[in-house]
Amino acid sequence: MFKLLKKSQKSQARLGKLKTAHGEISTPFFMPIATKAAVKNLDTDEIKNLGAEIILSNTYHLYLQPGMKIMKKAGGLHKFMNWPGPILTDSGGFQVFSLSKIRKILPGGVEFRSHIDGSKHLLTPKSVLDIQKVIGSDIAMILDVCPSSTAKREEVAQAVETTSQWAKQAKFAISRGSSVEPSSAKGYGGAKQLFFGIIQGGIFQDLRLKSLKELVELDFDGYAVGGLAVGESNLQMYDVLDYLAPAMPEKKPRYLMGVGTPENIVESVKKGIDMFDCVIPTREARHGRLYLWNKGKSVGQKNFYTTINMANAKYRNDFFSVNDSDLKQYSKAYLHHLFKTGEPLGMRLATINNVGFYLKLMSEIRKEIGQGRL
Amino acid sequence: MFKLLKKSQKSQARLGKLKTAHGEISTPFFMPIATKAAVKNLDTDEIKNLGAEIILSNTYHLYLQPGMKIMKKAGGLHKFMNWPGPILTDSGGFQVFSLSKIRKILPGGVEFRSHIDGSKHLLTPKSVLDIQKVIGSDIAMILDVCPSSTAKREEVAQAVETTSQWAKQAKFAISRGSSVEPSSAKGYGGAKQLFFGIIQGGIFQDLRLKSLKELVELDFDGYAVGGLAVGESNLQMYDVLDYLAPAMPEKKPRYLMGVGTPENIVESVKKGIDMFDCVIPTREARHGRLYLWNKGKSVGQKNFYTTINMANAKYRNDFFSVNDSDLKQYSKAYLHHLFKTGEPLGMRLATINNVGFYLKLMSEIRKEIGQGRL
Repeated sequence: MFKLLKKSQKSQARLGKLKTAHGEISTPFFMPIATKAAVKNLDTDEIKNLGAEIILSNTYHLYLQPGMKIMKKAGGLHKFMNWPGPILTDSGGFQVFSLSKIRKILPGGVEFRSHIDGSKHLLTPKSVLDIQKVIGSDIAMILDVCPSSTAKREEVAQAVETTSQWAKQAKFAISRGSSVEPSSAKGYGGAKQLFFGIIQGGIFQDLRLKSLKELVELDFDGYAVGGLAVGESNLQMYDVLDYLAPAMPEKKPRYLMGVGTPENIVESVKKGIDMFDCVIPTREARHGRLYLWNKGKSVGQKNFYTTINMANAKYRNDFFSVNDSDLKQYSKAYLHHLFKTGEPLGMRLATINNVGFYLKLMSEIRKEIGQGRL
Repeated sequence: MFKLLKKSQKSQARLGKLKTAHGEISTPFFMPIATKAAVKNLDTDEIKNLGAEIILSNTYHLYLQPGMKIMKKAGGLHKFMNWPGPILTDSGGFQVFSLSKIRKILPGGVEFRSHIDGSKHLLTPKSVLDIQKVIGSDIAMILDVCPSSTAKREEVAQAVETTSQWAKQAKFAISRGSSVEPSSAKGYGGAKQLFFGIIQGGIFQDLRLKSLKELVELDFDGYAVGGLAVGESNLQMYDVLDYLAPAMPEKKPRYLMGVGTPENIVESVKKGIDMFDCVIPTREARHGRLYLWNKGKSVGQKNFYTTINMANAKYRNDFFSVNDSDLKQYSKAYLHHLFKTGEPLGMRLATINNVGFYLKLMSEIRKEIGQGRL
């Protein structure tokens, strides 16, 4: 399902193809985030036209809203949201730990109260797989425990321990086959899901390598680095990747969860990462921040991009368009006006620009690796 | 500039063509509202693809934001918002009376405080023309006094009086030529603007006919019925149209401002109206209400359409798509989910549906008139 096509001579960067039930994707790639079955402000035609080959959605959110009864009747997420391409769903672990104020880690799973209505729920390694089976995602993530960046070693060690136990339970559930009828039966092909384990261990080298080793023994289809981009510094993150990525199986895709800025992505690709997702392009767009290329620079060069905040008064009189972007037909003055007056079109145009930027970033990265420059 | 093509045998309905600097439009038509230089939630490609031939924008709002300095530098509204087709701008009169809490009618214009920052402004019959010249609208409205539906006869009579005086001053300004360089000079053709007078008079027949007579004496390019859809009943509105429309010049376009529901539009077309604008399709969309055709019905038949509120829990489980609309690829359950979770995509899809419905309503109306059924 993963084919390694090229290894860079200049870095640990790789080119590959990941085959999923809904299509093949070139790596390294970036997944726009459709948390609640929609990429904020964009429809699926736009996402596709911007060049997205895969999107990410969210087990925790979809489980609470619309809920699995609806998801099942809908025939899965692809049909529900009208997206024909591959979908990755994260396990819900991260959201339980970041969104739910009341939660309790049990040996068999995590009990939490919904951040929406306070209702009580239990997610187990098996139940998140059942949920993701109903969602019909192409890539399902294994339930993990994600400690914060300020967690002490002891807490991180315990998280690794529990994550490994849960991964074992998940693997056992997978080997027995899901008890749930897959949504994918209804019109989206007899999809074979891929399962990715999530490596924890914070910034502790021995814990990271232990977590990796225990997951690799279970043999997943891919491996994700979780618990980064949660508050640690860039240097700490790069340090983890420097020892962790080379230790990850070469022939399996490597996914760095929730990362990051354009330079984070370039650096992480150079350290051997193949897959990314991040809220930055969509969230920053809603605040008026546009990601733009600097002319004549290629990715990896210093200052290859810049950001501008359209809400800034200095764009009031700027009748130049946003060059090299999907917004060529609009002046900065117009975009400024839209943000100033709160017109929803502003957020949408900014989102188109930023998601387009991130997707072009990935295609430029692939080109640079292909031509031996990265 | 206006060509009457057909008069119905069954009603006062008419078919025509209105020629503007940015293109010819088939009447009767509906103008989607781009109050602040954007149709809420839609980009101009979408508006065009939905079949809009003309949009409406707002002198009062554009004058305050982005202001005329910016509008002039932008080269006018067409360029600013990237809309190549005809634009009508209302005069600002209605907005001054509905939005600004502090205002004072003077013989020479209306003094008001901005609803945004409280700053003091004066709009005069000449200045609103200058503003609309800078905006570069294809159809400019003359400044009027718009009383509320509860205004006593005396107040309405005074409004008619002032509106006529202002129309005279406007006509004088037009005859002398604007002192402002038209924005249209910059890339949008040497546009010849059309000027429409606005008939006031509330629900008082003699005042309405007096207002009409005084405006017709000044010879405008078209005539608008103002001061309706401000709180009076449908029957009162129809009553006004019954005596007013037949008295309006046959060879000039007739515009009913701010109206209305689909049945209001059908009825008003049958009473001889050619042009409409209304916030209903866009505003209701933001509240989750969709306008839909009833199968097998043609416009003018009882119950030819229906509305449904996507936020209603009964659509949670409805996996049928919204038929005969631009949303065929989405189930009602998905649209419900988008409104329930507050995803901005929901408002946008609903807006596409409703603006599409109103534009199709007009093309159906034209077809029905053309085939002698309306």
